[in-house]
Amino acid sequence: MACFEREAVWSRREMMKAGALVAAGSAIASGAMGFAAEAQSAAGETKADVEQWGIFEASYPGPTGGNPFVDVEFGAVFEQSGKSVAVGGFYDGGGTCRVRFMPETTGAWTYRTQSNRPELDGKTGSFVVSAATAENRGPVRVKDEYHFVYADGAPYRELGTTCYGWTCQPEELEEQTLKTLADAPFNKMRMCVFPKWFNYNHVEPPLYPFVGQAPNHWDFTQFNPAYFQHFERRIAQLGAMGIEADVILFHPYDEGHWGFDNMGAENDDRYLRYTIARLGAHRNVWWSLANEWDYFKTKKEADFERIGETIAKNDPYRHLCSIHQQKVFFDHSKPWITHVSVQNDMPDNAPMYLRKWGKPVIFDECRYEGDIPEGWGDITATRLVGNFWKTLVEGAFCGHGETYLNAKEELWWSKGGVLLGQSPERLKFFKQVVDAAPAEATVLSERNTWGVEGEYYLTYLWDRQHLTQSYKLPAGGRFKAEVLDTVAMTITPVAGTFSETAEIPLPIQPYLAIRVVRI
Amino acid sequence: MACFEREAVWSRREMMKAGALVAAGSAIASGAMGFAAEAQSAAGETKADVEQWGIFEASYPGPTGGNPFVDVEFGAVFEQSGKSVAVGGFYDGGGTCRVRFMPETTGAWTYRTQSNRPELDGKTGSFVVSAATAENRGPVRVKDEYHFVYADGAPYRELGTTCYGWTCQPEELEEQTLKTLADAPFNKMRMCVFPKWFNYNHVEPPLYPFVGQAPNHWDFTQFNPAYFQHFERRIAQLGAMGIEADVILFHPYDEGHWGFDNMGAENDDRYLRYTIARLGAHRNVWWSLANEWDYFKTKKEADFERIGETIAKNDPYRHLCSIHQQKVFFDHSKPWITHVSVQNDMPDNAPMYLRKWGKPVIFDECRYEGDIPEGWGDITATRLVGNFWKTLVEGAFCGHGETYLNAKEELWWSKGGVLLGQSPERLKFFKQVVDAAPAEATVLSERNTWGVEGEYYLTYLWDRQHLTQSYKLPAGGRFKAEVLDTVAMTITPVAGTFSETAEIPLPIQPYLAIRVVRI
Repeated sequence: MACFEREAVWSRREMMKAGALVAAGSAIASGAMGFAAEAQSAAGETKADVEQWGIFEASYPGPTGGNPFVDVEFGAVFEQSGKSVAVGGFYDGGGTCRVRFMPETTGAWTYRTQSNRPELDGKTGSFVVSAATAENRGPVRVKDEYHFVYADGAPYRELGTTCYGWTCQPEELEEQTLKTLADAPFNKMRMCVFPKWFNYNHVEPPLYPFVGQAPNHWDFTQFNPAYFQHFERRIAQLGAMGIEADVILFHPYDEGHWGFDNMGAENDDRYLRYTIARLGAHRNVWWSLANEWDYFKTKKEADFERIGETIAKNDPYRHLCSIHQQKVFFDHSKPWITHVSVQNDMPDNAPMYLRKWGKPVIFDECRYEGDIPEGWGDITATRLVGNFWKTLVEGAFCGHGETYLNAKEELWWSKGGVLLGQSPERLKFFKQVVDAAPAEATVLSERNTWGVEGEYYLTYLWDRQHLTQSYKLPAGGRFKAEVLDTVAMTITPVAGTFSETAEIPLPIQPYLAIRVVRI
Repeated sequence: MACFEREAVWSRREMMKAGALVAAGSAIASGAMGFAAEAQSAAGETKADVEQWGIFEASYPGPTGGNPFVDVEFGAVFEQSGKSVAVGGFYDGGGTCRVRFMPETTGAWTYRTQSNRPELDGKTGSFVVSAATAENRGPVRVKDEYHFVYADGAPYRELGTTCYGWTCQPEELEEQTLKTLADAPFNKMRMCVFPKWFNYNHVEPPLYPFVGQAPNHWDFTQFNPAYFQHFERRIAQLGAMGIEADVILFHPYDEGHWGFDNMGAENDDRYLRYTIARLGAHRNVWWSLANEWDYFKTKKEADFERIGETIAKNDPYRHLCSIHQQKVFFDHSKPWITHVSVQNDMPDNAPMYLRKWGKPVIFDECRYEGDIPEGWGDITATRLVGNFWKTLVEGAFCGHGETYLNAKEELWWSKGGVLLGQSPERLKFFKQVVDAAPAEATVLSERNTWGVEGEYYLTYLWDRQHLTQSYKLPAGGRFKAEVLDTVAMTITPVAGTFSETAEIPLPIQPYLAIRVVRI
């Protein structure tokens, strides 16, 4: 009789560190709940709960001969009250096949494996899904066209950063990145699966995603499980800190060095299925098909359409999915694109993008705070922080990155490490202000204003300077006003209370926000 | 025998003050040179020279009955060596008809009047055109697609400002405006013929352009000569200071108050012919068909096409001619449009406009330095000055304006007066730098750089911050480098000399320019 592997994908201790994912880890570590009817009497010595939006994992010994990555088809169908979810499994090396599942509803679930190998086929089991604990709000979804919410309904206001290659660095540097993130305001990380060969990044990673010989002799049909185990451990650690992982599946900054940007459609698709099977059960995963899709010499628009469709077919959870451009926008009306990932620093254009595509808009790359000569990495903190405030009041979201050059060429934007800039502190201030706003806050008809009509107004004037800011407040309401200096990070109450036609006096300086709240 | 009126349009003393126009004034004041063959023996007691690009004027008593503005057709053909120029005349009230001419070549000219009235027809005369004196460089022309030069070949690098309604203010305020301009760096003024009824401008002017009753009972067939005499005196005073007058012929900010925006095609065209006849001989006149043509409720695109064609037909000097938009660009490929007048603050778009229309581009309105709540009048000096530097290195030109509110609502942008902002001083610094560059400086292939390949490089980094700026300098050349702080207005030499691949070290701060010049 086949039995569950009792080892966790990562150690229990690491799962404990991973906080919100502990529930999932428990399910894995206490995996000996047996399977289906015949197992239920034999097993039952451990109570096996998984949290809603946690990770349930079952693993089985599989064949070791041949190339299991290609030869073995394996997955499972999870069922609850007539509802069924088909999930792909994956070969994790060492003779072990695994299938992972993120239950989106509480209660009892059963499952049955499917495989072209008899020893992996028809295995069954059951488990109970408990309610999510406090920090676990589920995956992020689109709501009301332009907004994001966690599955539990709480607003998710994206405040991302970028460390493209942070999981391909020496252990010590990666740990430093996590330490930095623990004290940073970010709730999303843009990160590549594949290593990056580019300016300031001409180094070999400790591990490679495929079996073979660096730099460019790879067997693309044989994954290196250690590479992906490492990557998914980092995803889980981000998840434990409340950080969404915007996983960039392909990028063009390989340029023939390793050839991961030019594996061919069959290998690309196998890689996608493998990656989705491994990572998909992590509730904090988002898919980004590409960084700068239009910069690819080795893939065309049709390739990315196929890739997008492959993801949609293989991801049972409908994780958020986007594609990032250099100059040419992809056709964001494609049904598998959940939101518009923008590279440019023109938040004034947000309303146009929102209307055009009817989806949330994230300025994932609005240039980075830094001092390198490249035009994408030389803006001031003032400008970068301004982009965040401006995107907010235009109804969109924004992304941070940092490119201060140092002797080790450890630029946050790609390798992670430490943050040197002036923007993270100011983005914390931004986050405090935004977090304190009502959950239903959105763009209002008042110019440059976000909030709740008649209740709460947050106006941002970017680099403008006004003597006054006017509001038409509801008759009978009493409001207090504050002036926020978004650079100095101060909040100054305005004397008096306001109602109906209010003229808030302002100091003559740029980068101010005004907050008007009903008393 | 009809004789010349000996009175000048404006007094000789004012003409002296007007400096560069004195030569023209002399011609007028010494107008008793008689006309053609029969006059030459009778006259000749005064030497009657006009400077090249000065103003020659002849005037005659005409009919006083009826409505001479409509009834009398009057003009003259000016001839030199088989070349002839037909010029429209105008009725200046008090029974006087005038015709003005700006000779574009030196030497002897003759002329003969034409009229539907016998007493104004067939009058002849001659005069000698001397070389222009130092300050008189002639009208500004387009050169090499994207550049401006004076008629004498010197580069004209536009650095404009805007006082839409400055000639409709009390005398004292207008004189203050001239005083301010004398100490300002501007070489172009955007100014409306008609008064403006708009925010901060709800006042009646001392004079009106038509005969009738304010606010809106006018006889559009009868001009008020005093209004136009006043207006052209201000044009001449600007010319004497080396300031081009960008004369805005129509604007929509009347909105039914006076109705000057809604006179109908016949009255519009008569007004155009009259204005061109009066002002066209001033070498510093440019025509702007409209401010915000697309904001007009009372004129459509076809109206402005007719207006543009009317100007082209009636202006023998081919003065620079443009049309300014609010949101919708006019079709700037029209042959009568000499350059692209842009309203927006996106100098990054300059190369696109240059390529699209193959004409010089002026960001005439890139928002104004000020503190009013309107989005077009609330930017910082830093931003406004940055727009100038950025347009320069993108191959275009820029315009200033100021909208600081004060108790009298005397905002420079419309009424003139005094300047309160931080930008004029920094634009003087900009002008000093630009004036010191080689005459042939233009946009170079290096990003953000203007100059002369292999000789002179001026790079502007706007709000970016770089550790270094690189240049590929010609082998064998030796260059010196300076870092310019465009806000602090300092020029700091960089130690050493540079050649071939040069890396200029920079302080990490925005708003820097780098100047690299061959030693």
